[in-house]
Formats: sequence, structure tokens, C-alpha cells
Amino acid sequence: MTATNKTPVTVIGLGSMGHTLASTFLKAGHPLTVWNRTPEKADDLVAAGAARAATPAEAAAASPLVIVCLVDHAVTRESLASAGKAFADRVLVNLTNSTPDQAREIAAWAGENGVTYVDGGIMATPPLIGGPASFLLYSGDREAFDAHRDALAVLGTPHFMGEDPGAAALYDLALLSGMYGMAAGVAHARALVTAHAGPAKAQEFSQTMLLSWIQAMLSVFAGMDAAKMADESPLDMQAPALVNILEASDAEGVPPMLAAHLLSMMKEIVDAGFTDVLPPVIDDLVGRLG
Amino acid sequence: MTATNKTPVTVIGLGSMGHTLASTFLKAGHPLTVWNRTPEKADDLVAAGAARAATPAEAAAASPLVIVCLVDHAVTRESLASAGKAFADRVLVNLTNSTPDQAREIAAWAGENGVTYVDGGIMATPPLIGGPASFLLYSGDREAFDAHRDALAVLGTPHFMGEDPGAAALYDLALLSGMYGMAAGVAHARALVTAHAGPAKAQEFSQTMLLSWIQAMLSVFAGMDAAKMADESPLDMQAPALVNILEASDAEGVPPMLAAHLLSMMKEIVDAGFTDVLPPVIDDLVGRLG
Repeated sequence: MTATNKTPVTVIGLGSMGHTLASTFLKAGHPLTVWNRTPEKADDLVAAGAARAATPAEAAAASPLVIVCLVDHAVTRESLASAGKAFADRVLVNLTNSTPDQAREIAAWAGENGVTYVDGGIMATPPLIGGPASFLLYSGDREAFDAHRDALAVLGTPHFMGEDPGAAALYDLALLSGMYGMAAGVAHARALVTAHAGPAKAQEFSQTMLLSWIQAMLSVFAGMDAAKMADESPLDMQAPALVNILEASDAEGVPPMLAAHLLSMMKEIVDAGFTDVLPPVIDDLVGRLG
Repeated sequence: MTATNKTPVTVIGLGSMGHTLASTFLKAGHPLTVWNRTPEKADDLVAAGAARAATPAEAAAASPLVIVCLVDHAVTRESLASAGKAFADRVLVNLTNSTPDQAREIAAWAGENGVTYVDGGIMATPPLIGGPASFLLYSGDREAFDAHRDALAVLGTPHFMGEDPGAAALYDLALLSGMYGMAAGVAHARALVTAHAGPAKAQEFSQTMLLSWIQAMLSVFAGMDAAKMADESPLDMQAPALVNILEASDAEGVPPMLAAHLLSMMKEIVDAGFTDVLPPVIDDLVGRLG
């Protein structure tokens, strides 16, 4: 297959992520059209063979597959509205980070304007795009997703999460929640060791012992159901440890709020009725710490 | 080497963890003496060959290496005080979860009573003890640690963290901080998917996509310094995602507090001067979310 047999692609939005998506399509041999509010962001892509569109409408008219990757939902909605009917008969894949409800709103606009809609979430940082660790979530029009699966796979492994256009955003945000929790734990651990032994030791600790420990515990927490968790790590060992984190952090001058925030948050999750989410541990901790 | 050449060990405290430590020493061929406030907890160990001591003092007198694993610092301090001079000339390894200051307090008591002190932290749940994933942190008397390294290795890989008796507790609590942050993220992610697609789907999601995603991101966060982090994952992509987690959680009926708590906690860590811990990302997020 020569490059000219590949699906022409348009990329709208050339921020750090959009620019990476565009150059990845270009390197993979897809004819590429780009648009960005600040046209100079496309200079290197144009030098490498991409076409520069003057407006979102012109960009959408250029390719059957149109990727949108803008800074947020408001900018996306505005850009699409300004293009009028130019997206009609196109497959629009919106990779802008959004909520499920925002994705459904764009899907409704697409339905009213003759546009086939696929929503997506990118689970990779720009340097990872196109590499083996990159994966993307999609939802919405299954047929359009299947038709363009090979082109989309250039960016990373594609996963179809459901025909509800909001599904990709839901799973995207769930994964990001997990990442931010992990990142907060890593930050607190590094702060404790920084206070005790300095930043160089904290960096070394983070890359060795902390990394392998959280990896091991992650397999336990992600794989286990609540009953097994309570059975294998009894509550009378968990509660004093959390109190000790509070006290040790305070003694080292590190804000001792990790445990307090986590407890408060977990209690709210349980109170809202998600009682399959580690409830015995959480209820016991909340009870002990008042 | 026959079993009788192995160091006699005493284990004081037969809760879930202490009992596991005791049976692991016994299975490895160490002559074992045990004590527990409720004597019946030792019945199966005695049936398997352990000696039952009537008091902590009698237990300490029985072996050169004395392991203490009690529910918390207060119980440990009380049990040691009640034993008077019985621990003199013994190596006391205290595996009770404690703060660095509590470990230093027990070390001071040991110094006044002719006891050689090693503090320790267990980085494993009871089912993992003695297996390849188990590791323990130690600090305090380096010579005593080296002399008993082989016996201690029966429980899991031993790591000596420093001669400050509080060092093991500090690193122990840092690792637990990381674990609790990760666990909170996993809990929130599971709650979002439970709300959207039910508990069975959430369990499957947790064991597959969530697990591999956090594993990949963990390597990034644990390995990267702050400057590289800011460079590779620009702020204009992070801030909208965190806002979207808040909004999507609210829409699904999941308490949207993860992001709010994490932001607040991270801001406190930065304000306290730990500015090497992902500061550009945090400062930017706090600024945007107000």
C-alpha cells in the first residue's frame, strides 16, 4: 500500500497534543490538512507536506476523517458552530478532553448537522503518541469507528467503549482520577523523604523502592474485591498506620493532609452509596479517626 | 545446617501479622518462643513446636533475637515497660507500625535498659510474608541488624535505611502514603465506572485497563523530575481534565471531591516549601481552579 492509498485526515487544533497527532498522521503517510487559530503553529507541518486550511470549514471539507483536538469544550463548540454545515457527511472524531455530558452535547449538534460523530479520549502524553504505550478510547458511531480503526491506530491502540457518545469521556476521566490519586500519593511520599533526607535521596527512593512498592500494591487494590481486601489486610493494622502518617508528616513539616483528605473523600464516596468500593476499611478508618 | 543451628527467636504479639511472622520463623526451622495477651492465639504454634511464655519478660529471656509486633506504639511501650530488665542484652526488633518519633522513644528506652535496638517496618500483608514480594525496612543498630540479617530475611527482603532509629518508620509511612493515594484514585475510578456501567463492569475495568494505565503513569510520575514533567505534559491539558473530573463525577452522583482534595493537599505541600514536588503543574492548577 502506498501513502496515497491512506485516508486523508484533517486535524483541527495544533496545541501540543494536536500538533503531535498531526505529525504522527503525516509520518504514517496520511494526506494531512491542518487548521489552527494561530496559523504559524502549522509551519513545520506544511514544510513536511501538510496542507494549511484558512478556516475550520475549509479544513473539514478537505478530508473524510476530521480530528478535533482543542483546549476545551467551549472552544470546540465555538469552532464547530462557526463551520456551519462544512462537517456534513464527514466523520468527526473529537479528541478534546471533555465530560460525558459535553460529548453528548457535541453528538447532538453532529446529529442535527449531518455529521457522523465519534468521541475520543487520549490516554497518553504527547511524547508517547504513536508508541506502544499509547492508547485511545472511543465511543459513539460504531460503524464509523470500525471504518477508520486503521487510521486511528496510528495514534495508539484504539478501544471502543460503547455507543453512548459519553462513554469514552467517562472512562477517560475515571483513568485520570486513578492517575491523580496515585500522583498525589507519590508527591506526599517524596515530600516526606525530602524532609527527612533531601531531594536527591527522595528522587532515588521514588525511582526504586516507591515505584516497585506501589506497583505491587496496585495489583492488589485493582484486582481485589472488598471482601477479600478486608480479609487479607485486617483493619486493626490499617487505622494506626493512617494516624501515624498524619503524625509523622506533621513532625517533618509536611502538611499532614493526605490522610485527612483521603478519609474525607472516601467517606463521601461510601455515603453516596458506592458500597462496593472498599467499604469495610473506609468505614472503620472514619470511625476510628472521628 | 540443621534447624537447631538457627537463631532462637521470640515473637511478642500474635495478632494477624505477629502470628504470621511467628509461623514463618517456625516453618524456617528457628526455635520459637511466643507470647500474646490472649494465650490461646498461640495454640496452633505450640502444637507445631513453639514454646509459650507466660509473660513478656519470660518470652524475652528465651531468645537472643526478640521480635515485637503489637497493635500500636502505646501497647508496645506498656509491654516493654512491664518486662523491666528482661530485655537486657537482647536484640529487640520492633515491627509495630509507628512514627519516627515513637521509634526514637523506644530506642531511648532500649538505651537506658541495656537493650540493642532495631526498629522495623513491614511492607507486606500477612499472606505475602515470607514470599518474594515481601520486604521489610530496618533502622537503628547496624551491627545487630547485620548479625541477624539471615534470620530476618526469612520474613522478606531486609533493607537497612539508616542508623537513625526513626528512619525505617519514616520510609514505611512514605510508602504507605503512596499506597493510600493510589488506592483513593482506584476507588474514585471504580466509583465512576460503577455509576456508569455497574459493579461487574467496574471490576473488569479495574483489573485490566485501570491497572495497566496506572502502572504506566506510575513509572512516569515516580521517575520524572518536576522540570521534565512540566515539559512533557503541558499544563493547558491538565487543568481542564481536573475540572472535567469534578463535573463528570457530580453528574454521575459520585462525590466530586477527589480533584478538590488533591488540589488542596498539593497546594499545602507546595506552600510548605516542598517546591521540588511537581510545583509547576500544581501552581497552575490551583491558579486556574481558584
